[in-house]
Amino acid sequence: MTSVRVTNFAVSLDGYGAGPDQRPEHPLGIGGEELHDWFVATRTFRALFGQSGGTEGLDDEWAARGTVGFGATIMGRNMFGPVRGPWGEENWTGWWGDNPPYHHQVFVLTHQPRESVPMAGGTVFHFVTDGIHAALDRAREAAGGQDVKIAGGVATIRQYLHAGLIDEMHLAFAPILLGAGERLFDQLGVEGAGLKCVELVSSGAAAHARFTRA
Amino acid sequence: MTSVRVTNFAVSLDGYGAGPDQRPEHPLGIGGEELHDWFVATRTFRALFGQSGGTEGLDDEWAARGTVGFGATIMGRNMFGPVRGPWGEENWTGWWGDNPPYHHQVFVLTHQPRESVPMAGGTVFHFVTDGIHAALDRAREAAGGQDVKIAGGVATIRQYLHAGLIDEMHLAFAPILLGAGERLFDQLGVEGAGLKCVELVSSGAAAHARFTRA
Repeated sequence: MTSVRVTNFAVSLDGYGAGPDQRPEHPLGIGGEELHDWFVATRTFRALFGQSGGTEGLDDEWAARGTVGFGATIMGRNMFGPVRGPWGEENWTGWWGDNPPYHHQVFVLTHQPRESVPMAGGTVFHFVTDGIHAALDRAREAAGGQDVKIAGGVATIRQYLHAGLIDEMHLAFAPILLGAGERLFDQLGVEGAGLKCVELVSSGAAAHARFTRA
Repeated sequence: MTSVRVTNFAVSLDGYGAGPDQRPEHPLGIGGEELHDWFVATRTFRALFGQSGGTEGLDDEWAARGTVGFGATIMGRNMFGPVRGPWGEENWTGWWGDNPPYHHQVFVLTHQPRESVPMAGGTVFHFVTDGIHAALDRAREAAGGQDVKIAGGVATIRQYLHAGLIDEMHLAFAPILLGAGERLFDQLGVEGAGLKCVELVSSGAAAHARFTRA
């Protein structure tokens, strides 16, 4: 049975999944890069990009758990790239080089139609213009019984949270304050997303919280 | 040298220091009691109220660190009690019984003047109507070289944070989502309170983060 999961998603201790003033020079906003320090240091992260080395231990265990078992990924357009408005020359193919670390079908939420883009290593970027439910339907189909990952960014996760469509979520709270930016939990309401925290541990580089449907 | 410290202050993983709809029946708001589950279970908390037993280990270590070394306390009126507007009969003397667990001078921020109230065990409640700076001046003087505790609630801590007056802060992130309520970190800004996270550990019942001046 396919689960819809958020994994390895980093937020600051003051609740921001990206810093303020996002732009091409700092796509994660001011200070936002530090959200991912715990992740980029891990063996799992390095292996995704064909590199050896990296830390083992708690952070790497979470990184690994959050990387396997997915048959399709959904992301927002701003996570895919900095292009706004019409796609224009259509030469932007993501932040991840010729061989992105997905190796399956990736559904990009956008208001601008575009032909699908096959990449090396099995990743295919599809551009979905008819909303989060349509994207999820297509991703479930593409996942072939594996799980669907809601990769980010903040706005995308928030939409799926508010629609009650997330089955499991792993957040990594980074030991920083961003002070401003994109808040993950905003007016979620008392009923919330129907999620309950079932695990909370910390490495010092991140406090990992796992939520499942209540 | 007197430090101004926040300790043992609990927030939910979605950033709320109290739940929604605070009223006498649920003074911490809906769901807010659970914020303090980690604390009330500890040996330190129970000892504050003359009880034996309670948990030892990480949560108790933080509870203890956050209880000693203070010579004065500041709190907001809503933390002191549910009375709003004029004090009226003035028979409200706090949530803590005849012998509150402070044993020093406590400065209550309010717009309503009232005579000081001495309690058993050395606690004296003073009512400060001329603002957070005046309260801090009086608390520093009363602390006699020990530290000043900013006890809460959310609005009081936020005012001291925004004024850059907190030297050290310990937050306990409880493994719950409240969905709504009083948000501790609200528009603090990129400069923040000049605080930096220097420690992050978790017991499972709470992730403890300690911040000091950057």
